[in-house]
Amino acid sequence: MRRSVNVLIGGFLACASLLGAFPVHADDPLPSWAEGVAKTAILEFVQATTTPGSPSFVPAPERVAAFDHDGTLWVEHPVYAQVVYCLERVPALVRARPELAKVEPFATVMSGSREAMARLSVKDLEKIAVATLTGMSVEQFQADVRRWIAEARDPRWKRPYIELAYLPMQELLRFLRGSGYRTYIVTGGGQDFVRVYSESVYGVPPEQVVGTALGTKYGHGKDGRPVLTKEPRLVLNDNDAGKPEGIHLVIGRRPRAAFGNSTGDREMLEYTKAGDGARLSVLVLHDDARREYAYGPAMGLPDTKVGTFPQALLDEARKQGWLVVSMKDDWKRIFAFDP
Amino acid sequence: MRRSVNVLIGGFLACASLLGAFPVHADDPLPSWAEGVAKTAILEFVQATTTPGSPSFVPAPERVAAFDHDGTLWVEHPVYAQVVYCLERVPALVRARPELAKVEPFATVMSGSREAMARLSVKDLEKIAVATLTGMSVEQFQADVRRWIAEARDPRWKRPYIELAYLPMQELLRFLRGSGYRTYIVTGGGQDFVRVYSESVYGVPPEQVVGTALGTKYGHGKDGRPVLTKEPRLVLNDNDAGKPEGIHLVIGRRPRAAFGNSTGDREMLEYTKAGDGARLSVLVLHDDARREYAYGPAMGLPDTKVGTFPQALLDEARKQGWLVVSMKDDWKRIFAFDP
Repeated sequence: MRRSVNVLIGGFLACASLLGAFPVHADDPLPSWAEGVAKTAILEFVQATTTPGSPSFVPAPERVAAFDHDGTLWVEHPVYAQVVYCLERVPALVRARPELAKVEPFATVMSGSREAMARLSVKDLEKIAVATLTGMSVEQFQADVRRWIAEARDPRWKRPYIELAYLPMQELLRFLRGSGYRTYIVTGGGQDFVRVYSESVYGVPPEQVVGTALGTKYGHGKDGRPVLTKEPRLVLNDNDAGKPEGIHLVIGRRPRAAFGNSTGDREMLEYTKAGDGARLSVLVLHDDARREYAYGPAMGLPDTKVGTFPQALLDEARKQGWLVVSMKDDWKRIFAFDP
Repeated sequence: MRRSVNVLIGGFLACASLLGAFPVHADDPLPSWAEGVAKTAILEFVQATTTPGSPSFVPAPERVAAFDHDGTLWVEHPVYAQVVYCLERVPALVRARPELAKVEPFATVMSGSREAMARLSVKDLEKIAVATLTGMSVEQFQADVRRWIAEARDPRWKRPYIELAYLPMQELLRFLRGSGYRTYIVTGGGQDFVRVYSESVYGVPPEQVVGTALGTKYGHGKDGRPVLTKEPRLVLNDNDAGKPEGIHLVIGRRPRAAFGNSTGDREMLEYTKAGDGARLSVLVLHDDARREYAYGPAMGLPDTKVGTFPQALLDEARKQGWLVVSMKDDWKRIFAFDP
């Protein structure tokens, strides 16, 4: 009964608003954002680019927004989730290929020593990534990531990694889509890795994920059915200059808005902001040691392997007119599980 | 006055149809297709995959349709439009780099001899493509293609190439989009080349064009502004096995429907058809020498450089259950300019 009444009331309100009798005030689309410069700038940008007749109006097909992933949409500290995934794949890899047990860097991982693992170089991690991310069909890989992402827990909150998505950014993605923007993830992380959960966590479908991509090889399985096998061949290094290059390859349009948090996003933010008309480039500052993490020389803290954020990047943001978002000051809540 | 009356009638009909009082019969969405097996199979596929409750129902996010371009969406005979574009760029290239005037294959092109040019090998054409498609910014390239596509005329009909798009396929693209499918072009031709006119000719935006792609390099122009320069580095050869590989890279989903016309589309058609649930793979047969062209051994005619279509491909279509579309029998009109 209540439902019927609601339907009737809903119908009446819909008619009334069509007639212009009751102006509809939308609720705050960004409730987790504190009132302030950052929130205002974002709201004004969206308003200006989507209001017909506005001098900054952007036609719907050109409304593209690009988001870095690690450190911009979810926690990247102290170790990228995908690095954890790859390290946890090593024992199974060594079972399948026992000759790797005594070969570095696999031997270090098999030792189980966290200290030794923390000393692995980027080159070591790349070797581990290539060995653990290739050789299987794309469907096998997707199934394995899906299982892992459901089971794995992060070391600090003991929660599934997908719960470490930033609530204010989830709100922003939804708000932009509601305003006719197509939201893309442009990640230095693995394209196939992020695609597995991008839709459920961020509402971003696989075809709107641009990421570091190894090639696939088309062939046929034992049953004669076609299969795409993941190959150790780098097609796109979606970091630094690779981000605008990857954006051109997959999207073919310069974004109107871009969001990043580290030096790997510098070129994407610069490229976005340098376009004609209204453009928004946003740098997220990890300055909340209590609720999340504070890191990088810009914080007066030592640099880390992840989320490189030197003072120079902050200086550049100010020089180029990028919007700097402080997680500490601009976000009322960081996670959906925050009180 | 008439307008107000129409609005009132329209409003009444809308209400009536919402109430189910007047079932709405859509007009034929494929008026240029002759009644027959092919048209019926396409209509039934779309109906089955988009009707809620149907055993073959496909959720909207998974509705992806992939179309080859040359020979499937527009004329590819006797020479690909993009090859003509590249050949016509050679004089300007030689003016800019006079040392090329005496180097093959550029010397042959500069000779102006059509006979000699017809003997150029695929390797020669690749050299010409790389030399004429790289070294400029993506914006310069887009502007040049836009100008050329407006000015150039094909040798037979003396019309802009974009008028050589197949009307039945334009109708089909529109019909699929109207049914919740996202339509992609998956072309062996240049991704950046096709993107320039894909939206206006086919309603396919740049981000839904997957094609053979040379890389770009991010840098800064003399004015200090960021620029993406087209580079002689092959990122994606979107032919043969490269089609499913490119589909995975850019779309990340197996298409529900695929359309092609030559051996370069074989793997895409096979990959599409091998997926679970309802799938449609379609091979367009160039068998209308009067209204378009008839070519390939399947026609009992000699093979040509373009649109390779051996008997084996037709045999495979029949074996794998691909739908074969005869341009002669299944298309009432081929071009919008046909009477």
